[in-house]
Amino acid sequence: MTDDEAQELGITESKEHATGEWYAEVVQKAELADYAPMGGFIVTRPRGWALWEAVRDFLDEQFRATGVENAYFPMFIPESYLEREKDIVEGFDPEVAWVTHGGYDELEERLAVRPTSESIIAPFMAQWTRSHRDLPLRLNQWCTVVRWEATETKPFFRTKEFAWQEGHTAHATAEEAWEETLTRQEQYASVYEDLLAMPVLRGRKPEHDKFPGAETTVTVEALMPDGKSVQGGTSHDLGTSFAEAFELTYTDEDEVERLAHTTSWGLSWRALGALIMTHSDDQGLVLPPTVAPTQVAIVPIWQEDTREDVLEYAGEIAEDLEAAGIRVELDDRDTRNPGFKFNEHELHGVPLRIEIGPNEVEDGEATLVHRPDGESVVAEREGIVESVEAAFEEIYDALYDAAEANLEANVREADSPEEILGTIGQYGGYVETGWCGDEACETVIKEEIAAEIVMVPMDPEEGPIHEECSICGEPATETAYFARTY
Amino acid sequence: MTDDEAQELGITESKEHATGEWYAEVVQKAELADYAPMGGFIVTRPRGWALWEAVRDFLDEQFRATGVENAYFPMFIPESYLEREKDIVEGFDPEVAWVTHGGYDELEERLAVRPTSESIIAPFMAQWTRSHRDLPLRLNQWCTVVRWEATETKPFFRTKEFAWQEGHTAHATAEEAWEETLTRQEQYASVYEDLLAMPVLRGRKPEHDKFPGAETTVTVEALMPDGKSVQGGTSHDLGTSFAEAFELTYTDEDEVERLAHTTSWGLSWRALGALIMTHSDDQGLVLPPTVAPTQVAIVPIWQEDTREDVLEYAGEIAEDLEAAGIRVELDDRDTRNPGFKFNEHELHGVPLRIEIGPNEVEDGEATLVHRPDGESVVAEREGIVESVEAAFEEIYDALYDAAEANLEANVREADSPEEILGTIGQYGGYVETGWCGDEACETVIKEEIAAEIVMVPMDPEEGPIHEECSICGEPATETAYFARTY
Repeated sequence: MTDDEAQELGITESKEHATGEWYAEVVQKAELADYAPMGGFIVTRPRGWALWEAVRDFLDEQFRATGVENAYFPMFIPESYLEREKDIVEGFDPEVAWVTHGGYDELEERLAVRPTSESIIAPFMAQWTRSHRDLPLRLNQWCTVVRWEATETKPFFRTKEFAWQEGHTAHATAEEAWEETLTRQEQYASVYEDLLAMPVLRGRKPEHDKFPGAETTVTVEALMPDGKSVQGGTSHDLGTSFAEAFELTYTDEDEVERLAHTTSWGLSWRALGALIMTHSDDQGLVLPPTVAPTQVAIVPIWQEDTREDVLEYAGEIAEDLEAAGIRVELDDRDTRNPGFKFNEHELHGVPLRIEIGPNEVEDGEATLVHRPDGESVVAEREGIVESVEAAFEEIYDALYDAAEANLEANVREADSPEEILGTIGQYGGYVETGWCGDEACETVIKEEIAAEIVMVPMDPEEGPIHEECSICGEPATETAYFARTY
Repeated sequence: MTDDEAQELGITESKEHATGEWYAEVVQKAELADYAPMGGFIVTRPRGWALWEAVRDFLDEQFRATGVENAYFPMFIPESYLEREKDIVEGFDPEVAWVTHGGYDELEERLAVRPTSESIIAPFMAQWTRSHRDLPLRLNQWCTVVRWEATETKPFFRTKEFAWQEGHTAHATAEEAWEETLTRQEQYASVYEDLLAMPVLRGRKPEHDKFPGAETTVTVEALMPDGKSVQGGTSHDLGTSFAEAFELTYTDEDEVERLAHTTSWGLSWRALGALIMTHSDDQGLVLPPTVAPTQVAIVPIWQEDTREDVLEYAGEIAEDLEAAGIRVELDDRDTRNPGFKFNEHELHGVPLRIEIGPNEVEDGEATLVHRPDGESVVAEREGIVESVEAAFEEIYDALYDAAEANLEANVREADSPEEILGTIGQYGGYVETGWCGDEACETVIKEEIAAEIVMVPMDPEEGPIHEECSICGEPATETAYFARTY
C-alpha cells in the first residue's frame, strides 16, 4: 500500500470541527454513496442501499401488521392533476421537474415527475371507494420522488431525487384518521428507537408549518451531535380537504353520502443521513448491528506456520455465526495485513470485529472488539454465537445511550428572545419556551439565527411551559421547541 | 346486489374468442391494475403489486446467493451520457422521455428518464474498478424505467413505464462473463418454472435481434395459450464493447491494464402478464399458491342457529393455517352470501377455498375446493395444515402440467415458407426450421405474417434441424424458432 492509498482510505476531516465536510467524507469513503454527474443527485452504492432496505423491511412489516397494502402509481403526474390540488395547496410548481417531450415529439400536456403523489393517488382512491365497507383504505408505495431544490447537495439529507415511502389512507371518521396519523408517527419513532439506535422527540408542527391542506402534521425529531434537529418523518391528518378536492366520498350505513377523512405520511432516506451523522466518528462509519450489512468481520492473524490452523478455526466460527443468521465476513485476504483490515472494517462501520490468532486457537477463545468504543472482550469458543449476540445488544445500547445523553443534555429552557438566541447560539440543541402561536414571533428569532420552531409537544394536558410568549409577551398557548435544522 | 353489480363482478369476455379483451377485463376486475389518465401508464393495485413483490423476493434471494448486490442509480441520465453509448448502439432516442425544465427554469442539458441504465452505471463501475481484486463486480437495481412507445397499452405487457430489475456486472475474463450470462438466464427460467408454474424454452436471440452492443443475448421464452410467445427475460454478454466505451479497465495480476467483460440482464413485470395470461380462465384470475397474495379463502356457511358454531370452528382453522405461515382470509362478511363469496374469490384468483358448514363442524372436517378446476376434497380437521399444503402442491403441479402440455403440443417442424406460414397461421405456437442465419429470410416470413425468430437453441452440438434453410435453400447453420409474439 502506498501512502496515497493509506491517505485515501482514512477519514481526514474532523466530526467536531468540520461536521459537513466530515459527513461528506464518511459517506463517500464508507462507500455509501457517490455524487452523480448532475448536481443534486447521488448514486447509492450497495452499502448505502442495504441500509435503506433495512429501513424498508422493518417499516414494511409494521405497515402490513396494521392493514397497509403496497401499490404502485405512475412516476408522472399530468399538469392538470397537480392543478386540481391548488384549491388546497400552493403546489409544488417551483420544485417540479417537467417532462415535455416523448421521443422526438412534444407532449400535449406536460408531465410532472412526482414530487409526492396525493394528486394521482386521491382520484383512484375516490374511484375505489363506494361504501363504508371499502374503508379504511390504506395504500403505501416505496419509490423515489423529485424536488428541484437548488440547495447544496448533501447525500441523504438534500438531494433532488430521494427515496421514501408515501402512505395514503381514507377513513370513515375524523377519529379514525387521527388515530391513523398517530399510528404512523409511532411507527416512525420505532424506526429510530428500535432500529437505528436513536431516541426521538414526538411532536406536532406549528400551524404555519403544517403540510399544505392538513389539519395537523405530526413529526418525530432527532437531535444530531452538532446540535441541529432532523425532521425524521411526518404524518398528516388531512381532514376532509383532499377528499373534497378529489370527491372522495362513501355511502354510509344510513345510505347517506359522506366525505372521507384522509391521511398521508412519509419517511425518506433522510433517516440514513441522521443515522450516519449520529453514530459515526473520525475513524469512519458507525452502525448499530440491527442494520449493518456486515455485522461481524473475522480477522485471522497468522504466521506462515500457524496459517492453516488459524484459518480453519476462524472458518468454523464463521460457519457457526452464519448458521445462526448473523451477517458475517471472514476476511482471509492474503494481500492485506491485519492492521489494514482493522482500519477498513472500522471505516465501513462493521459493528463487531473478531480477532483470531494462534493464541485464540490454542485457548479455544476469540477476541471480540466493539467498533464504537474499541472495547475488547475475550469470549469462549463454546457459546460464541451467544457472546456475539450479547455484544450486539451491548453495542446497540451503548449507541442509543450516547444519543439519548446528547438529547437529554440539550433541551434547555429560555424565556426571552435574547436567551433563546444566546442558548441556541452557544449550545445548539432544543430551546423550549412559551409561545403565543403567532408565526411572527418565530420570525423574530429566525431573522437573527437560522433556528425555527421544529415542534410543539403533543399532550394538550401539559399546557405551555410559560404563562407568556417569551417573544411578544402575549399569553402563551403552547410550548415551542426552537432548534436549528438540517 | 343489483344485476348491474353482478354483471360488473363477473368476467364477460371469452379467453378463447377474445383473448385481448378478456385479458384486460381480468386485470381490472381482479383488481390487479387500472389504466392511468395518461395513455400508456397503469396504476398497479395491491393485488397486482403483491405479485411483483413475490417475483422480486424470489429473484432477489437468488441474486444474493450468487454474489449480486443491490444499488440505486439516478432516474435521470444526462443527454451527453446517453450519447457516449452511441458508439455502440443506435440509442433509445425515439423512446426517451425528456425532462427539460426544473421548476420555472429550462435546464442547460436535457435529462433522459432512464430507458435502461447502462450509460449511467458503466461510468461508475469504471470508477470503482481498479484492480483484478475489485472484480467480479455485480450490481442490480429494482426500479421502473420509461420507454415512449406509442403502441396500445396492455397492462404488464406494454406500458410506457414498467417495473423491472436490471443487473450489471463486470468480470476479468470472457469466460466469467459468459458464465454470468447463463447464470442469470437460468435464474429467470427458475422464476417461471419454480414460482409461476410455467415451463420456458431457453435459447439465444438471432444475431440481428441481440441487445445493441452485445456479443450474445440469451432469453427464456414462454408460450401463451393463444399461441404467442412471451420473451420472459433476457441476459446479455456485452463482451468488451461497453467497457471500451466507458473505459472500464482493471490492472491484472501481471500489472497489465485490461478491459473488463461486462454483462447486463433484466426481467420485467411482463412476467406478470405471462402469469395472468397462462393460467386464468373465464371465471377470472388463476394463480399458483406460490405467489397468490391470499392462498386460502375460508367461507363459512351458516343458518342463524348454526352461526356461532360454524364461525368458531372456521376461526380456529384460520388460526392454525396462519400459524403455519399460510396466507389465509376468513371471509365472515355478513353482508354477502356464500355464492357471491365463491365467485369473488374465484375472480380474484385465490387458489384454494375452504367451505365450512354445520356438517363439516359436526364431522370434524372441511371441504377444500381447488380454484383452477373446481376439484373438491373433504379433509379431516386434524392435519388440516398438511392437507392444505398438499393441495397447494397439487394445484401448482396441475397448472404447470397444463402449461407444459400446451408447450409440448405446440412446437412443430416445418421446412418450407408455405409450411411455416401455414402452421403458424393455423396453430400458432413455435415452428422450428432450418435457417441460414440471414435476417432476410426472417423478413420473408415477417412480411406475410406477424411472426419472427424468437430464439435459436443454445446447444451448438445439436446442429440445425434441417440441412438447408427452409426459406432460401442455402445451407442451414442453425435451427430457428418462429412464433408470433407479445
